[in-house]
Amino acid sequence: MAADSRFHAVAGPLPLARIAQAGEVTVPEGAGDRLFRGVATLQAAGPEEISFLDARRWLPGLKESRAGAVVIAPENLHAVPDGMIPLVSPMPVLAFARIAALLHPPPAPDGTRHPTAVVGEGALIGEGCEIGPYAVVEDGAVLGPRCIVGPYAHIGRNVVFGAECRILSHVTVTHCIAGDRVTLNPGCRIGSEGFGFATTPRGEHVTVPQLGRVILGDGVEVGANACIDRGSGNDTVLGPGTRLDNLVMLGHNVRTGRGNVIVAQAGIAGSTALGDYVVVAAQVGINGHVTIGDKVRIGAQAGVMSDVPAGMEVVGTPAIPVREAMRSFAAMRKLGQSKAAKAAQEKTSD
Amino acid sequence: MAADSRFHAVAGPLPLARIAQAGEVTVPEGAGDRLFRGVATLQAAGPEEISFLDARRWLPGLKESRAGAVVIAPENLHAVPDGMIPLVSPMPVLAFARIAALLHPPPAPDGTRHPTAVVGEGALIGEGCEIGPYAVVEDGAVLGPRCIVGPYAHIGRNVVFGAECRILSHVTVTHCIAGDRVTLNPGCRIGSEGFGFATTPRGEHVTVPQLGRVILGDGVEVGANACIDRGSGNDTVLGPGTRLDNLVMLGHNVRTGRGNVIVAQAGIAGSTALGDYVVVAAQVGINGHVTIGDKVRIGAQAGVMSDVPAGMEVVGTPAIPVREAMRSFAAMRKLGQSKAAKAAQEKTSD
Amino acid sequence: MAADSRFHAVAGPLPLARIAQAGEVTVPEGAGDRLFRGVATLQAAGPEEISFLDARRWLPGLKESRAGAVVIAPENLHAVPDGMIPLVSPMPVLAFARIAALLHPPPAPDGTRHPTAVVGEGALIGEGCEIGPYAVVEDGAVLGPRCIVGPYAHIGRNVVFGAECRILSHVTVTHCIAGDRVTLNPGCRIGSEGFGFATTPRGEHVTVPQLGRVILGDGVEVGANACIDRGSGNDTVLGPGTRLDNLVMLGHNVRTGRGNVIVAQAGIAGSTALGDYVVVAAQVGINGHVTIGDKVRIGAQAGVMSDVPAGMEVVGTPAIPVREAMRSFAAMRKLGQSKAAKAAQEKTSD
Repeated sequence: MAADSRFHAVAGPLPLARIAQAGEVTVPEGAGDRLFRGVATLQAAGPEEISFLDARRWLPGLKESRAGAVVIAPENLHAVPDGMIPLVSPMPVLAFARIAALLHPPPAPDGTRHPTAVVGEGALIGEGCEIGPYAVVEDGAVLGPRCIVGPYAHIGRNVVFGAECRILSHVTVTHCIAGDRVTLNPGCRIGSEGFGFATTPRGEHVTVPQLGRVILGDGVEVGANACIDRGSGNDTVLGPGTRLDNLVMLGHNVRTGRGNVIVAQAGIAGSTALGDYVVVAAQVGINGHVTIGDKVRIGAQAGVMSDVPAGMEVVGTPAIPVREAMRSFAAMRKLGQSKAAKAAQEKTSD
Repeated sequence: MAADSRFHAVAGPLPLARIAQAGEVTVPEGAGDRLFRGVATLQAAGPEEISFLDARRWLPGLKESRAGAVVIAPENLHAVPDGMIPLVSPMPVLAFARIAALLHPPPAPDGTRHPTAVVGEGALIGEGCEIGPYAVVEDGAVLGPRCIVGPYAHIGRNVVFGAECRILSHVTVTHCIAGDRVTLNPGCRIGSEGFGFATTPRGEHVTVPQLGRVILGDGVEVGANACIDRGSGNDTVLGPGTRLDNLVMLGHNVRTGRGNVIVAQAGIAGSTALGDYVVVAAQVGINGHVTIGDKVRIGAQAGVMSDVPAGMEVVGTPAIPVREAMRSFAAMRKLGQSKAAKAAQEKTSD
Repeated sequence: MAADSRFHAVAGPLPLARIAQAGEVTVPEGAGDRLFRGVATLQAAGPEEISFLDARRWLPGLKESRAGAVVIAPENLHAVPDGMIPLVSPMPVLAFARIAALLHPPPAPDGTRHPTAVVGEGALIGEGCEIGPYAVVEDGAVLGPRCIVGPYAHIGRNVVFGAECRILSHVTVTHCIAGDRVTLNPGCRIGSEGFGFATTPRGEHVTVPQLGRVILGDGVEVGANACIDRGSGNDTVLGPGTRLDNLVMLGHNVRTGRGNVIVAQAGIAGSTALGDYVVVAAQVGINGHVTIGDKVRIGAQAGVMSDVPAGMEVVGTPAIPVREAMRSFAAMRKLGQSKAAKAAQEKTSD
């Protein structure tokens, strides 16, 4: 079974030659006219569907698969069973992503505005936008062409979006300037008041007005229920192509470079700056006012307390270079083993 | 004082015999006609209220309580003060839960549809459903009988719910097939796009279309602002009776067995499979593509990096068996103590 | 550039004498008539703007700044460049907060009710309140004077708010009694059902009805997408002036004292009690049923498993006093270093 057509569009059947063009894959001679309806996993795919092989551990699954064709790296070509068409690509996942998007295109804006949508004075809605039921677009907001605004999306006063953005259901976005092709998943909060206050000698917390903005570069994607506070004075800035997963939290004035990947439930405290192509794994915490270099990789649940130089991989709390951490952990675990366990281990290693 | 009647229904007063039947508790002879109005904690209960004793550490509270009756295990019966009626049960919390639900019944659907609700073409609303203000039920969605749909609940195209579900305020649910008696607490996001992409050699992230669904078994409950992404190709599946607390995150293709308990702010990465009756404590992180056996217990904040066999209890990051971890921690803590502290300890242990 | 006037009000220009009065700062003689338009960071401020110096590490920025005036502590007065007006305060951030609020006042309620707002029977809306589009205020709810209710805010039956509260977009609040000047940021969930259930011998989880409330003291602020469950029998209580950051989770029956600060993504399990002025850093987890004393400070990502006496600072998982933890960590890290690294270190220390 391919994708459930109740929930996902099916553009096919399409000829393999057309599909191969989208995925930039090589098709065996004579197979270009075969028709395919969709994509599916190796387990689920049938003769009219295309699957893909990513990791080598899936090789057994390939053998058992009934898929009509498979996107595959040249080095795994030998494992393709008889009768299955190999679609060769040096980057199978990327090729598969493009093929899947051709066969199951994402919803396009339908150009309609639901009668219940509230659009404020002076708001500019670009050509071809789709505005869902109960959306609120406040005065002066600007939407570029072909945006999708979901149900209950709340776009604040003077907020700006470029072309082809998706602002999905229940999103709140205020104090924000966003580029093209920005996706805000359901329930994320962009531009909320940062957590800034001064405390009086009597213990009363007095809000420091949060007077900055949120700047979202082209192609930025923000996960469901994630939160990005606006800057306190400077701006909070997400570089082009940066992707945040669900429930991520970015404090005021955080800046990321290009193409950062910040996985679920990670949090970055105020005024921290990340370089380009940084990867922050799930549930990581990064202290405020630190600098993370280009292409740094931070392991899941790590706690980063200070600057990390470009290219380094760190793990643990406080975060340290990954090799060092692995040795520490092994040593620590040894400390915790009982004498009996140690004796058993020694025996095994005889 | 019992439950605040501004916020909680009061069905009583009811005779103790009727109450005892609901809770499957034993009532002393002659007490069956006594009337009770509600339930309350030991501290708060008065003569017309029923309380319960769970843990032994609350025994002092029992002595001071003014409760008219108390649900109690047989082994604690001796501690019930004079004049308080003991309601004996081998499982006092379970019995109390049932008594409380009788005396303070949860809101039932009132069978009305608010005039502001938007219900799409071909959507089927079961008998006796209550649809709140500004709910959006898209084309082709199906609700079984006696569901409650709260304000601003967004039920996507072709989504299916069984009987007696509660989809509370501000929920987003798309690409989902749900059983009976499913509860979605406020603001949870079901069926959002998973965090799947391939990266080009130039560092551009290209979305891999997320073509699966979310399948929720009978009796599943999802906490406020929790997120469950839809499958990427396979489905994300929650087994019957599984309960998720607030702000939990489940990635695409996660599968749980029956009756899992996943506590607040825990996160499970993509394609991980959990057995039956697994308990995942608060703020735990579980790696992607791992297998967790039946009845595994994972301690709070643990980081699980690999498979865990059935029945095991693990803690820590990386997670290891609990006994081993306790010894490691003690050893590590010792390393951190000053010489003076060690000397002091040695003296104490003389 | 000062605050972007598309997003932030500008009350100025105002004379420095008036500004100094608001901030309780000292102005040099003769400068009281100078006009200022706004506030900005040291880097961004121009001659018509006021900035501030907080930490000493910003002293180089002060030298380069073009700000017309700077709020500064007396001990840093010497570093103010020629031509910049020093505004002296013993608490520069606090003074700056008050000046910024004068020059860029937060949005005030405009006294209007949007025609799409649904207000239930017997609900009382105080004088001067602003009720946004698609707000739902259920039967019997009470709002004090001058509250702001944002788009899609859902205020449940019989909920009570005092004066000058802000219930922002997409908030859900039920089973709650709140004081004056309470702020609920977008998407937070107040009063949801707590995670309470009993499990039958067959493994079925049976909900224990959650019959308490949430009590919010004067001046409480709750972050975006944070969750506070209502009490199970007792109440969940936040003391006056307590502030929660985004994505924080408080379980049923949690109680905080005055002025607590609970940073992003921290979670506190059920029935735990915090004293006054406790600081809980980001991503901390606190076990249920523990007691945290006054002025305790808990470091980021710590896991608190048992009571912490007043005044103590703890870190780590399980949390231990900070000094002890630092020594443990150093010792553990040493275990993880390679022999070569140790030799190198020894050489360096020769």
